[in-house]
Amino acid sequence: MPTSSHTVKVIFSDDQACELNYIWLRDNCTCPQCIHPQSKQKLVDTAALDFNVRPVSMEASADGTLEVSWGDSKGTHNSSYDPLWLYKHGRSYMLDSDNKDDPRAALPPQELWDRVSIWKGMPEVSYKEFMSTDDGLYRWLDLMHKYGVVVLRGVPCEKDEILNAVKRVAYVKSTIWGDTFDVICEPVQNDPSHLAYTGMYLEHHTDMNYREKSPGLQMLHCLKAMDIQNGEDFGGKSFFVDGFMVANWMRENNPAAFHILASTPVQFSIASHNMRYSQMSPIICVGKDGSVEEIHYNNRTLAPIQAPAHLVAPFYHALKEFANKMRDPGSELSFHMVPGDLVAFNNRRVLHGRTSFDSTKVMRHLQGCYADIDEVFTRYRAMHSQRTK
Amino acid sequence: MPTSSHTVKVIFSDDQACELNYIWLRDNCTCPQCIHPQSKQKLVDTAALDFNVRPVSMEASADGTLEVSWGDSKGTHNSSYDPLWLYKHGRSYMLDSDNKDDPRAALPPQELWDRVSIWKGMPEVSYKEFMSTDDGLYRWLDLMHKYGVVVLRGVPCEKDEILNAVKRVAYVKSTIWGDTFDVICEPVQNDPSHLAYTGMYLEHHTDMNYREKSPGLQMLHCLKAMDIQNGEDFGGKSFFVDGFMVANWMRENNPAAFHILASTPVQFSIASHNMRYSQMSPIICVGKDGSVEEIHYNNRTLAPIQAPAHLVAPFYHALKEFANKMRDPGSELSFHMVPGDLVAFNNRRVLHGRTSFDSTKVMRHLQGCYADIDEVFTRYRAMHSQRTK
Repeated sequence: MPTSSHTVKVIFSDDQACELNYIWLRDNCTCPQCIHPQSKQKLVDTAALDFNVRPVSMEASADGTLEVSWGDSKGTHNSSYDPLWLYKHGRSYMLDSDNKDDPRAALPPQELWDRVSIWKGMPEVSYKEFMSTDDGLYRWLDLMHKYGVVVLRGVPCEKDEILNAVKRVAYVKSTIWGDTFDVICEPVQNDPSHLAYTGMYLEHHTDMNYREKSPGLQMLHCLKAMDIQNGEDFGGKSFFVDGFMVANWMRENNPAAFHILASTPVQFSIASHNMRYSQMSPIICVGKDGSVEEIHYNNRTLAPIQAPAHLVAPFYHALKEFANKMRDPGSELSFHMVPGDLVAFNNRRVLHGRTSFDSTKVMRHLQGCYADIDEVFTRYRAMHSQRTK
Repeated sequence: MPTSSHTVKVIFSDDQACELNYIWLRDNCTCPQCIHPQSKQKLVDTAALDFNVRPVSMEASADGTLEVSWGDSKGTHNSSYDPLWLYKHGRSYMLDSDNKDDPRAALPPQELWDRVSIWKGMPEVSYKEFMSTDDGLYRWLDLMHKYGVVVLRGVPCEKDEILNAVKRVAYVKSTIWGDTFDVICEPVQNDPSHLAYTGMYLEHHTDMNYREKSPGLQMLHCLKAMDIQNGEDFGGKSFFVDGFMVANWMRENNPAAFHILASTPVQFSIASHNMRYSQMSPIICVGKDGSVEEIHYNNRTLAPIQAPAHLVAPFYHALKEFANKMRDPGSELSFHMVPGDLVAFNNRRVLHGRTSFDSTKVMRHLQGCYADIDEVFTRYRAMHSQRTK
């Protein structure tokens, strides 16, 4: 084992090698004094370690375990490092780059969709299967991960049944709109405080972009809808568009417009309950690795653009490109929600809306709620790794 | 009014001027067709506008209102722009830079604190005043904004009273730990699933760094504590440190170490309930303008550092600098919580912890809960602007 004053070089059986700092190794000792056996939380007080800690002795056992006896100003300490653990966590040393082995890496890829592709395999699960079987739950989680939208079918048309659905995958997120909210249109409703509660056409949007972190999961449960069996369509049709598809399409087809939307923060703002919620965010949020991570778009709550003058015309043109692709009927999953349908979607990926309807004729009641979507993805990763063991 | 094919130049009475794009002006028309009168939400469909819209006529009225009659492929439309509105929203044009006029700009500055300065004006409010008066509520919001920590005194020692406190300023955030959680230590408790539920020393930390967005507001309500009137201290003393102060101190005194912590994402991770929550974040999160926006630190849930090899030693040294300043008794607000105290703090700014205690002797019961802190700041801005009108 080649060593230096601060590092040891570990060579694995595939001839890969990594140079590990002693302080890093000491800090990551897994003995019961350093990692709490029940909670698995770290007990070693990193900042209190002697950073000049050195091995008194060090050897690789027959099975590849690295055994180190440490000596420092505070005495001695013995550590054993499993070779697989070293291989996994030493990776960044080998690659000499940030660790790409993030928890999502092992998951199947997200699948971008448009109207044609989504109808080839409608992301839907029966409510009974979802609520009562692991397979149903896993199927729902997997669809949410891949497509960002899942329709539950056959949900009992009871008010607050949606709470049972959300609790299966996350926790209800209470907001200014309540634990749950009702999008009710009964013939004749006066003085609406929110445009969703009218019969107006609601353009594609994501919800609550004016929050510090908009709710990642939204659910909408249809309790009542106009019977359209007679063929007459009174409107109120729901539609959903994969914002990641739109953004990636833009990156391919108009990279300059993509760049403008990804680099220009805009303000979303709403005045309600005698307060004003505001948040700045680009319409397309891109991660460090260049991948599209979030979409924020709602023309109704978009404040006047405050970009430098030379960016104003480019911004408007980029916005139109984005909107045109989003509004292209070829992009959307669109259908009449019927009582018993419960649509859940990733509110930072999938834009939603509904066509206008005559609120003097149409009766429509959706109950909705929000939740944190990392709860969903955490459950998905756990079930996925169980099932792919 | 000097015009070009795409812009009009507006000159204000203080001789400031700005060049406004027609499309921007048309998009921001405030007539009842373009802004919904009740909800104030935007009705004009930005993406559907004719981007070649031009004024047919344009004039400034005696009071400075800009009256524009627009003509485009779709017909005509009349808009009036209030001069104050134009001055405010045209600012970015004048400055030719991103708008600095964010909603926080008008608020008093945050005040960084250490032990000496915080005791000069202990951030505390009586519960009665907080719950029943606007002044008490405003005082609490103002202290939370400035210091990131506020102690409510005289809270009834009833389980779930904390829910009334949180509902005064936000909504309860349900997590894996429940709507609320109990940090109970009664003499002899076995097999704890979380280290907070033991008598262990809990080093300074922020909670739930492994979530996509850690809860911004945390409340801890003391229901039971050991009587220390007899002068014997059994431990379990609470302490709080202003992480923004620590970060800014580092930036002044060791900018290289500050840079390392602000630019190296680390992974926080916890295994619980048969799942693993994970999130990457730098320990110090800096905004685009260079200001410190968030602190994430918990040694117990910090996963092995996965930085490039040449950053490992610098990272450990920077972490120690950070921890040393944090652990300096001169940094901390520390006191024994007594029954009736309810401490609320900004969990992305203020680190908390408690000294160890003998769990065979000490009885201690805190009830805690989380909430989104943007709810708090939104209420603060509303009350602040009311009071400074």
